[in-house]
Amino acid sequence: MERSAVYHISEHVYAYPVKSDVLAVRLKVKKDDVHCVRVHYKNIYDHQAKPQAKTMEKILSDAHCDYYESEIHVPEKRFKYYFELLFEEGQRFYTADGFLKDIGHFNAFFYPYINQDDLLDVPLWAKGETIYQIFVDRFANGETSNDPANKKSWGSRPDRRTYYGGDLQGVIEQLDYLKGLGVKILYLNPLFASPTYHKYDIEDYYTIEKIFGGEKALESLVEKAHQKDMKIILDGVFNHCSSNHPYFRDVLEKQEASPYKDWFMIDSFPVSKQERNYDSFGGLVPSMPKFDTTNPEVIGYLTDVAAYWTKTLNIDGWRLDVADEVSHTFWKTFRTKVKKAKSDLLIIGEVWNHASRWLQGDEMDTVTNYKFREWLNRFALQEISASTFWEKIQANMALYKKPLFPYLINLVGSHDTIRNKTLLNDEALHYLSFALMMMFEGMPLIYYGDEVGMEGGEDPDNRRAMRWELTDTVLAENIRQLCRFRARSEILKKGTLRPLSLDKRILGFERTYQNETLTVVFNFSEATYTFDAYEVQTIHFGEATLQNGLHIPPKQFAVVS
Amino acid sequence: MERSAVYHISEHVYAYPVKSDVLAVRLKVKKDDVHCVRVHYKNIYDHQAKPQAKTMEKILSDAHCDYYESEIHVPEKRFKYYFELLFEEGQRFYTADGFLKDIGHFNAFFYPYINQDDLLDVPLWAKGETIYQIFVDRFANGETSNDPANKKSWGSRPDRRTYYGGDLQGVIEQLDYLKGLGVKILYLNPLFASPTYHKYDIEDYYTIEKIFGGEKALESLVEKAHQKDMKIILDGVFNHCSSNHPYFRDVLEKQEASPYKDWFMIDSFPVSKQERNYDSFGGLVPSMPKFDTTNPEVIGYLTDVAAYWTKTLNIDGWRLDVADEVSHTFWKTFRTKVKKAKSDLLIIGEVWNHASRWLQGDEMDTVTNYKFREWLNRFALQEISASTFWEKIQANMALYKKPLFPYLINLVGSHDTIRNKTLLNDEALHYLSFALMMMFEGMPLIYYGDEVGMEGGEDPDNRRAMRWELTDTVLAENIRQLCRFRARSEILKKGTLRPLSLDKRILGFERTYQNETLTVVFNFSEATYTFDAYEVQTIHFGEATLQNGLHIPPKQFAVVS
Repeated sequence: MERSAVYHISEHVYAYPVKSDVLAVRLKVKKDDVHCVRVHYKNIYDHQAKPQAKTMEKILSDAHCDYYESEIHVPEKRFKYYFELLFEEGQRFYTADGFLKDIGHFNAFFYPYINQDDLLDVPLWAKGETIYQIFVDRFANGETSNDPANKKSWGSRPDRRTYYGGDLQGVIEQLDYLKGLGVKILYLNPLFASPTYHKYDIEDYYTIEKIFGGEKALESLVEKAHQKDMKIILDGVFNHCSSNHPYFRDVLEKQEASPYKDWFMIDSFPVSKQERNYDSFGGLVPSMPKFDTTNPEVIGYLTDVAAYWTKTLNIDGWRLDVADEVSHTFWKTFRTKVKKAKSDLLIIGEVWNHASRWLQGDEMDTVTNYKFREWLNRFALQEISASTFWEKIQANMALYKKPLFPYLINLVGSHDTIRNKTLLNDEALHYLSFALMMMFEGMPLIYYGDEVGMEGGEDPDNRRAMRWELTDTVLAENIRQLCRFRARSEILKKGTLRPLSLDKRILGFERTYQNETLTVVFNFSEATYTFDAYEVQTIHFGEATLQNGLHIPPKQFAVVS
Repeated sequence: MERSAVYHISEHVYAYPVKSDVLAVRLKVKKDDVHCVRVHYKNIYDHQAKPQAKTMEKILSDAHCDYYESEIHVPEKRFKYYFELLFEEGQRFYTADGFLKDIGHFNAFFYPYINQDDLLDVPLWAKGETIYQIFVDRFANGETSNDPANKKSWGSRPDRRTYYGGDLQGVIEQLDYLKGLGVKILYLNPLFASPTYHKYDIEDYYTIEKIFGGEKALESLVEKAHQKDMKIILDGVFNHCSSNHPYFRDVLEKQEASPYKDWFMIDSFPVSKQERNYDSFGGLVPSMPKFDTTNPEVIGYLTDVAAYWTKTLNIDGWRLDVADEVSHTFWKTFRTKVKKAKSDLLIIGEVWNHASRWLQGDEMDTVTNYKFREWLNRFALQEISASTFWEKIQANMALYKKPLFPYLINLVGSHDTIRNKTLLNDEALHYLSFALMMMFEGMPLIYYGDEVGMEGGEDPDNRRAMRWELTDTVLAENIRQLCRFRARSEILKKGTLRPLSLDKRILGFERTYQNETLTVVFNFSEATYTFDAYEVQTIHFGEATLQNGLHIPPKQFAVVS
């Protein structure tokens, strides 16, 4: 047995409460190195009873390691535990002091007490549901009277200053279209008053942009969405603001005499846009000065904004821009305040890389899972095999607590990436990737227009106006059907995922919920794939035939049981 | 190379800021498996420059793993990095997506931004300083007029109800004795009004116990200690209170109508002491009902207590009782409030096992390091060899950020353990262990009387009245000298520690600070040990002779350079 690979700490994703008296414990070991792992556990203060023992389940495997997990129950909430590893030559005990033969009281791992604030509290309504992301200016123009003067014609290519006239009334008018796609959650790009079309540089956090229809239109959208059992999520841009924001202008004007001088990350006075002697979005964009998000006044101001709109509009969540640069103190306060305003609010962080730091329960509920996109694209483009795809995907999942798996936000594109269809340069591959996202464990996020196969290169080309004429195509109809299929399936929304080892260009997996299993097989190869390792009875979805095995044509997939 | 052992996450002890633009990164690998580890790093948003590279230092080794660490500097505070591992057959790159040959932008590890609240903020004045723990009733009786009626004679054996008459005036009168021991910090066991001698069950958080001399005596102690450049730390018992506390009595009386019904962990109503249907200290002691430390009212009340006494008495720190059962929300609020009252206050958690959860920077500054005691005792009692001692000690240190190493509170005994001399049952072994604690990296904690070799079994026998007559013994004089030696030595207080591989019964290590090194060798064997692996010039401390090598008699030690 490879002892150097064995890893556990009594915190983080390795030990976390799932109920007030149930602790999930995880152990990392070398891949295929042990036959079985058991956890022995009891109440810390019970010096009499023998510990209970439970066999752990292998929940994940990456390229080099297996991850075992189990939930253990101690009514007194005071956990003491150690692991037993069974392998070819025998059995070893792994403790807080490493491998030991004689395990004393203090050699066990301790989880001393489960307090209520240790428990994950993720909104149940969001589990596995589909999100649809809307760039309001580019989606639908429902009310021409609020159009900006300089708007471009709907079909023309965007530049970095273009307006198209899309608005909230346009979104309202398309609610049935979105409902028809099985969408549960609309995530709207920023809506607060700002000098740009994208509105990631906010001038006034207390005004909804007039060209979008203002507060009234947003109120109406929330109300109508709620009537259709849909949810509305706003984009929270709290890392930086516009250099036109009155507080930053006050600093430019009064310099060190400004009451807001400590609100921003200023290198030296006199500060000026020309000198760029202050930090900004990515350190690169002087028109977006960065807040000091550790300053209690800044925290107070911006979290008040979030709580105000949460209450005033009765929205259902926030997507947090540049979430990984904002201070942890900020997000902890943010969570407390917005959850007080609405307890089942969903908080999504925009994080492009490992995000476990923000997902310990006291900051965000979930994050954008860009790792899914990266490895799916690499697989679709034949850069990696199916087994590598699973190794990378599971290495990423190993960073998170298991209850979060159905909440990770899987996406094949966003306003910050090349359009999926353009990147893959193949409609069939786009369809397969999109379908895989819809069949996967997690919350799929549809970037407006991807469901009709819109094209577009890097920003700003990935933000073209919605091509409504494409909603009648075969691709759009196929995607609509699979989105609706997911929306109706508790297994797809809430089930666990277990990868199947099939072929190099075949991605197969099982989804299981309450003892029901769906098997999903994607054929990314150029030949028909025959899946015969399984007694298939029913094809629930996809282009495949059943005759001495399940035959899946090239670039098709099937959902079967 | 054993890839399954390689581990890094971009948070916790594996990635933590040490300055506003400097990040410490740590990598775990299999022991003796790689020749060299380098970290490549640059600003996340710099897509032009080649990353910088830095060779990492092996800072720790346990039984199966080596830990490499390095500090990397990115002025923009936005860190992107990956590791290069050099081993016999070549070189591999380890990234956020595991081992990769082609490393894309998002495959690197990200530490997206250093915010000020990410920085550790541990009081510099405490670094490596000596703590002396005083059970006030048992230390010195300075004022007989406040003696409790039922006190026992000073030399008699304690039971669980005994009072001896010790008081704060007694401590004041012994300040010179303590100063003479090189003590910087006095940690006083609980002083708030309570029905027991130990006062871990508090009735009134706003009253200093009259039998100890009350608030006036404590004020005077703080003032006089400060005049001698000594610090005072109080014991904060916030996990539970006395069942006589008015709020718990109110619950017993009014039951569900009590405004304090949610302040405690009550299983069912009617609640009663007889039924024991509420949680308590360890779930075992009904006279100590446990607070619900997630209740905002409880948090407000108890952290107000802490802030009040911090300000009123100008104390220098808190030692937090049962720190590991109190909620994280509580400790985060606690830290914010007491540090606001006094910014360089020292916060010590009582934690008996792994404590990294509480040491991420926003809760405690440091904790009791009972793992040091356990493995030192096992070594002294010949249960383990020197190499095992180092493996266990370093496995424990690997749980903490490097800047905390000189703050970990090493102890050979406390009011909750058998007296060290009694456990080891040998004066020479007691002396050696005690000396080792004083020469080690960390903050040594002297439990009153251990420095004169007091004896005592389990609680209550480990809490006998101080035997002042023993301060004249050879043992006491030797210990006094070595304590003073530490107090004068910046190397011992602030230097890093590097273990030496010597003999099975020999514990040797180097302490280094600002390019000066002291070598410390403890001979726990029954024979004279000759240390010749080093060009020793000077013996700074200990019983040893220099003649063709350094000769250390049995059960002696030497500090040399």
